[in-house]
Amino acid sequence: MTPALEQLQKQLKQLPGIGYRSAERIALHLLVEKPARLPELVAALEAAARTVRRCARCGNLAEEAQCPICADERRRTGQVCVVENVQDLAAIERSGAHRGSYHVLHGKLSPIRGIAPEDLNLAALFDRIASGEATELILALSNDVEGEATCHYLTERLPASGVTVTRIGFGLPSGGGVLYADAVTLKSALEGRRSYS
Amino acid sequence: MTPALEQLQKQLKQLPGIGYRSAERIALHLLVEKPARLPELVAALEAAARTVRRCARCGNLAEEAQCPICADERRRTGQVCVVENVQDLAAIERSGAHRGSYHVLHGKLSPIRGIAPEDLNLAALFDRIASGEATELILALSNDVEGEATCHYLTERLPASGVTVTRIGFGLPSGGGVLYADAVTLKSALEGRRSYS
Repeated sequence: MTPALEQLQKQLKQLPGIGYRSAERIALHLLVEKPARLPELVAALEAAARTVRRCARCGNLAEEAQCPICADERRRTGQVCVVENVQDLAAIERSGAHRGSYHVLHGKLSPIRGIAPEDLNLAALFDRIASGEATELILALSNDVEGEATCHYLTERLPASGVTVTRIGFGLPSGGGVLYADAVTLKSALEGRRSYS
Repeated sequence: MTPALEQLQKQLKQLPGIGYRSAERIALHLLVEKPARLPELVAALEAAARTVRRCARCGNLAEEAQCPICADERRRTGQVCVVENVQDLAAIERSGAHRGSYHVLHGKLSPIRGIAPEDLNLAALFDRIASGEATELILALSNDVEGEATCHYLTERLPASGVTVTRIGFGLPSGGGVLYADAVTLKSALEGRRSYS
């Protein structure tokens, strides 16, 4: 193969979920099968790199100073859903289960991977609580040691205020049977049992 | 999500093997996790679009007038392996089983999909035979109706010359057991039996 093609394949292979074969297939698709798509892709990449930035309020992606969710008056309910990253935010948005705003930490505490509190988008969250804008935190962090550590750190350091803090439920996923659940999930499910009447 | 991000995801989703979730993951990877990679990817795409063209001799991808294989004197053996597309050429190159040159048809005959002989890179192949440069054709086209039709058309229209024509063997793939082979493969394998001594 030619050097420019090799370089393109190398760049494509660094993307998440793209292996050697997919990189070759995409490169040849853009160069041989659909060459008209290549400048369109380049334009979309450049436009996104130029216009997309972090929302000053919550850390979500934005094209204005605030993201579309923060800019939406109807979503200023005081309920703030705290998530690890933008993907998690997008997943919760797709579920339609949360109508308040978000706060994106851009990571979770991990001494092993060297991620300390100052690496997370925490100061802006504490500001939102101190100003009285956030009245309820819903911690939608993962059900693992790092998610647990992050929740623990966050609640320990909360500014003195009457903010309510909840953490999303853990247990059997939708459609999941007891037989197929692992021991940790079953433990979470039993600990998270609720009165049934 | 923001409009520029949506547009980027739409462009990524059009690539082969990239679905909705992968497009989101790649877009956020390039915008949030590894923003330094985005300009590198854009540069690689633009460089490839600018420099990569078709080899004037065989139809493979090239950055000079001829592709690296045609430019290699040691590979001018008269043996020309005829393939459907550049991916197939790359697969045969990886196997190391062919040391001659190639000819890329950029498709195969298909009345159903409206692909006629004039859509294929055939004229250049006939020129290579007429000039005496190609002395043996190895038809490495797929084992299906369209591959069969293309081989048939090609041999019917060959310029009057002493060129030898063979077609690659069909049968059980490496590691494949008789029990797991489909009926058409077994038929090909039986028809393609060779004396064993």
